[in-house]
Amino acid sequence: LSEPPGTGAREVAQFLELLQLEDLGGDVFRAWNPPTTETRFQLSLFGGQVAAHALRAAQLTVAADHGIHSLHGYFLRPGKDGAATELTVDRIRDGRSFTTRTVVARQDGEAIFNLTASFHRDEAGGDFETPIAPDIPLPDELLGEQESRFDRMGVESPFERLDVPGYSFREASDVPRRAMWIRLRTALPDDAALHHCAVTFLSDMGVLGAVRASRGRMGEPAMAASLDHAVWFHRPVRADEWLLYDIHARSTASARGLGIGTMHTVDGTHVVTVAQEGLVRLPD
Amino acid sequence: LSEPPGTGAREVAQFLELLQLEDLGGDVFRAWNPPTTETRFQLSLFGGQVAAHALRAAQLTVAADHGIHSLHGYFLRPGKDGAATELTVDRIRDGRSFTTRTVVARQDGEAIFNLTASFHRDEAGGDFETPIAPDIPLPDELLGEQESRFDRMGVESPFERLDVPGYSFREASDVPRRAMWIRLRTALPDDAALHHCAVTFLSDMGVLGAVRASRGRMGEPAMAASLDHAVWFHRPVRADEWLLYDIHARSTASARGLGIGTMHTVDGTHVVTVAQEGLVRLPD
Repeated sequence: LSEPPGTGAREVAQFLELLQLEDLGGDVFRAWNPPTTETRFQLSLFGGQVAAHALRAAQLTVAADHGIHSLHGYFLRPGKDGAATELTVDRIRDGRSFTTRTVVARQDGEAIFNLTASFHRDEAGGDFETPIAPDIPLPDELLGEQESRFDRMGVESPFERLDVPGYSFREASDVPRRAMWIRLRTALPDDAALHHCAVTFLSDMGVLGAVRASRGRMGEPAMAASLDHAVWFHRPVRADEWLLYDIHARSTASARGLGIGTMHTVDGTHVVTVAQEGLVRLPD
Repeated sequence: LSEPPGTGAREVAQFLELLQLEDLGGDVFRAWNPPTTETRFQLSLFGGQVAAHALRAAQLTVAADHGIHSLHGYFLRPGKDGAATELTVDRIRDGRSFTTRTVVARQDGEAIFNLTASFHRDEAGGDFETPIAPDIPLPDELLGEQESRFDRMGVESPFERLDVPGYSFREASDVPRRAMWIRLRTALPDDAALHHCAVTFLSDMGVLGAVRASRGRMGEPAMAASLDHAVWFHRPVRADEWLLYDIHARSTASARGLGIGTMHTVDGTHVVTVAQEGLVRLPD
């Protein structure tokens, strides 16, 4: 963690630049991963960055009136920063209502991540949602008690975060839950596709924290790695407005833990659900 | 629904036969889908059958000491019964601890389903689980009140089911939840891989029921189709012993609904988690 000065405008601009892919033709794209200093969140390439790059590549092959509604990916091998990622898109289905893409992300010819992403042309129907948990304070209340924190995850702190007391990374709680409010530090353009990439990026944060908390050993060194990752986009979402990310561990066994999180706007709207399984090896 | 006589031994044997794939060489396999009469659960090929076939194909290319721990798939196009499915496996990663496979299921050359499946060599660590809901009666209690039901889903009733009152298909409830106890009618061999296929098969039941219940319009005709499907296998599971499948809708919007379910043994052990999004179009 670092507390960079300024408004964050430079960091958000760098984040937007990160999402600029080079089109190599034939549905192959190249992304650049700037070199980073290691942090405790990251031994190598941040998973959310690879996932956001893969989603971005898929979006670039899909008609603008089809928006992402779900994605499922697997982290296959550790990636590295200071290096390019090559993203190969397969147009597995082009339908009238739904469009599906698979993407393989490679470094040095080896697959590091694979993704299937599904896009839906907007239609009406349904108004049921998971309510925001009643024990969650709003960002304005938390800002009276804490300053927002800046996460460095591959890129320089484009996000600011408010920890929900009792469910934060800094507490050695054994409640199997992590909850935080998070947003980009300055505005993104009004392009839904970019907001979806930013939400995908940040959705790789916190799930393994909830899993580790379920084992009551948050403070100890451990080998932890995301295995798979799924995101469902239920309703329009902006990454530059506060989002509650409320994550519960559901199971830990065989060194694997599954966490499921929901994201909500300040007015409580349930905009996104995330599921991730991770490998967490703790010393005996 | 039908209530076939006898012990179910013939139906379970037919189910095992369904999982026998023909090896065409080069990691391509062929599955046969027997013709079925249409039921209200099914307009065409049952999704769980395609998913089980894809998992089976992946298993046949993986060392026996690596067991499935998660799978993520997308239903791309409707399949048909009375026809073969061709399953092409890609050995995307062979690791010491983890092995990953992608599978594309095709009929008449068109992709109908794609799957990524991840296998893990058994290791120790973790003992947290989602508890069984306190309002769930045990199978023995339900058997005093109802007879088990037999679901025909592509194959002839290898499963028997007990509905949990209040959360069943037969009630026009608007509680966004479906809960049932389900098992194969007779024993399967002691081969964990076959039990995983059977659990995958049955995991495609009930989720869209929970989604429809969240819209309070269970009784009406609707167009409903599974879009994606994810299963996490947390602990050893047998498909021939009662499993509670407890499914909650989490969101419905834009004609899409997400349900998340957990499976538990009679002693409450949390063995499996399932997430599925479906398209549910109801008339205005």
